Amino acid sequence: MAKLVGKAVIGQSGGPTCVINRSLVACVEELRKAKQVTGIYGARHGVEGILGEQFVDMKGQSPTALAKLLDTPSAMLGSSRMKPKPDDCAKIFRVFKKHNVRYFFYIGGGDSAQTANIINELARGEHYEFRTFHIPKTIDNDLLINDHTPGYGTAARFVASAFQGDDLDNRALKGIKIDVVMGRHAGYLTAASVLGKLEADSGPHLVYCPERKFSFKQFARDVDRVYRRLGRCVVAVSEGINKGPKDTDLITAEAGEVLLAESARRELPRDSHGHPQLSGTGILADYLVFKARQALTPKYGKLRLRGDTFGYLQRSFPGVMSEVDAREATQVGRLAAKYALSADIDGSVIIKRKKGRRYAVEYGYLPLSKIAMGERPMPNSFINKAGNYVTKKFVDYARPLIGKMPKTGLLQAKPVRNK
Amino acid sequence: MAKLVGKAVIGQSGGPTCVINRSLVACVEELRKAKQVTGIYGARHGVEGILGEQFVDMKGQSPTALAKLLDTPSAMLGSSRMKPKPDDCAKIFRVFKKHNVRYFFYIGGGDSAQTANIINELARGEHYEFRTFHIPKTIDNDLLINDHTPGYGTAARFVASAFQGDDLDNRALKGIKIDVVMGRHAGYLTAASVLGKLEADSGPHLVYCPERKFSFKQFARDVDRVYRRLGRCVVAVSEGINKGPKDTDLITAEAGEVLLAESARRELPRDSHGHPQLSGTGILADYLVFKARQALTPKYGKLRLRGDTFGYLQRSFPGVMSEVDAREATQVGRLAAKYALSADIDGSVIIKRKKGRRYAVEYGYLPLSKIAMGERPMPNSFINKAGNYVTKKFVDYARPLIGKMPKTGLLQAKPVRNK
Repeated sequence: MAKLVGKAVIGQSGGPTCVINRSLVACVEELRKAKQVTGIYGARHGVEGILGEQFVDMKGQSPTALAKLLDTPSAMLGSSRMKPKPDDCAKIFRVFKKHNVRYFFYIGGGDSAQTANIINELARGEHYEFRTFHIPKTIDNDLLINDHTPGYGTAARFVASAFQGDDLDNRALKGIKIDVVMGRHAGYLTAASVLGKLEADSGPHLVYCPERKFSFKQFARDVDRVYRRLGRCVVAVSEGINKGPKDTDLITAEAGEVLLAESARRELPRDSHGHPQLSGTGILADYLVFKARQALTPKYGKLRLRGDTFGYLQRSFPGVMSEVDAREATQVGRLAAKYALSADIDGSVIIKRKKGRRYAVEYGYLPLSKIAMGERPMPNSFINKAGNYVTKKFVDYARPLIGKMPKTGLLQAKPVRNK
Repeated sequence: MAKLVGKAVIGQSGGPTCVINRSLVACVEELRKAKQVTGIYGARHGVEGILGEQFVDMKGQSPTALAKLLDTPSAMLGSSRMKPKPDDCAKIFRVFKKHNVRYFFYIGGGDSAQTANIINELARGEHYEFRTFHIPKTIDNDLLINDHTPGYGTAARFVASAFQGDDLDNRALKGIKIDVVMGRHAGYLTAASVLGKLEADSGPHLVYCPERKFSFKQFARDVDRVYRRLGRCVVAVSEGINKGPKDTDLITAEAGEVLLAESARRELPRDSHGHPQLSGTGILADYLVFKARQALTPKYGKLRLRGDTFGYLQRSFPGVMSEVDAREATQVGRLAAKYALSADIDGSVIIKRKKGRRYAVEYGYLPLSKIAMGERPMPNSFINKAGNYVTKKFVDYARPLIGKMPKTGLLQAKPVRNK
């Protein structure tokens, strides 16, 4: 088979991760080796850059320059939240034809796979030989098919570390601490809060994921039970709890609660799907603190109660990369290029976990047309019956993904007997 | 001089830091070597534990057990916010006499030095030979006399890293991002936000410290100016901005603003000094986002605006220790023990910076009676004239304290010329 000669375009899309540049660098390095690739264009801000023909030269990047990006969080080419409409996709395809782009790599979530597929179909329709690969990433870990997604391991490691530290802090000063974690539709990241626990009574003591109905009553009862036993309580809450049929359910559920009502009245920003923007505000944590205070103060009197929202640090904090995640992000970027260069195929790179006690993965791909739309919630078996904690099955699943944690430990000291 | 034979008590106080256990371990290790120290008691939760005679045996700790604590954030013995009254101090002294405690080490901020001094004075009054040392710590870096304080370097490294990542994130998706940093009275930690900048146009682009009067009008104008030029803007704001003569000034300054008024009406928690508790809530960041939206939307239309409050992660996140900070925290703990064992003295260990281009410090101590009350704000020369950024002088001061940052870099790629 004659080699397909032409340019390659690579872009990054959606919420950045700490390892998305690993995929970028690995893909570019693989493409640089291939003579049939006459140019490597980086698209600035994903499809927006393609539509505006804003490309940067990635073929001219030296290995040294690329190496500097390996440990750098966030999407170096710029990212985009734009979901291109069919017209946009047609325009993108015209841009590709104009530049003789024959290879297209899009690093992103489920929407990016769809975009890649539409452009690929346009190329097929015109018998324009074209190879396109979707390179998966998302900190939410909610892509269908994949065992897990590059970006998740490092974000999960951040969350596990954050809760380890926060629990130690809360032991020292004793109180109730509520931390809100990213993940609107899936609880994977919130569940990762347990992965840094130093002993059974370490926090988080309660974990609420969006897969289960959230009840303020149960929440208050749960916190009370833990606080009564330990004199302290750390709670992990997903930003996506209590999504009802209407996205505003959480906000309207409890009439008269001014804080959330205010957020609606003030037109708290909404994303392109119309969901109220909960990341980037502290409103949910503050509200839960308020609810817990209301429920527990009559019983305990003055309480030390705090709420934190981990926010964008979860996906952008440098220096906490999971080495497993970094390796896999590299691998999916490299393989996308290899697959595309090897044969007339398109697809999305897939990570499968091998059976066996020792953690190991194998890679493959699925044709773009077979990538179904939608998000993957956590399986039921990862959340306990009461809906307020994770199961051992989740821990077994997620523990290998976060890599090595910092070496920390608790003081084991005998009390001195009083005279 | 005959060696003073008796027990030692060590305690931790105030807000935990990531290196406070380094001071604890170093002090205990030094004391374990001294034969005249017949027992080493760790006080659970600072003065609370002394009052309640809740001690744990630290002499029996093996070097291996102690080593596990070195990289563990937060105060392992438990901490306390209690400011003991004269009666409490008298009781503490009685407990010490009862147990033949002759050495007392208190790791904490300015209040802890005062507590140590009061107890020391009681001992002197009764001609009870007693040696007490204060071991400094605070992430706020606002202790008087010291060039800087153990705990600050690591918290500053966290903040510098957080802003580096957050700026990269904000470059990728373009918007206005406002991050609230700890430090009620001093801007050292907020100012540290600039220490991870990868280039001049990296964020934070604006830095507001509590040392200068905060004006919402100037804030909106500043953000507008940066956003107009770069199409993005990252802002670092201290949780302590705009403290007026009354602590509620920020809240009452702008009548009709429901969010903050609500926080007052709902009796947002206050600390023991009556200050409204801004850490542990997201209310200030949300409010500033609201103000920026209000000011800029008429001009720019729909904007991507987010606010994060870094919260307790700043003082408790594991695995991001500044090696300089770790070394110095060890050193102050060790020296406190050495000083106390060496002669009939009391004091607070002091860190001085040596003159010269290369960063180096020397240690000393000041008698407890000479430790003045109060907090140290940043010098005027660390903040620019406009009050919206730091100076080179601050960077020169703080850069050596945070140690090595992770290796990260920006993509330097030439735009592709369009056909």
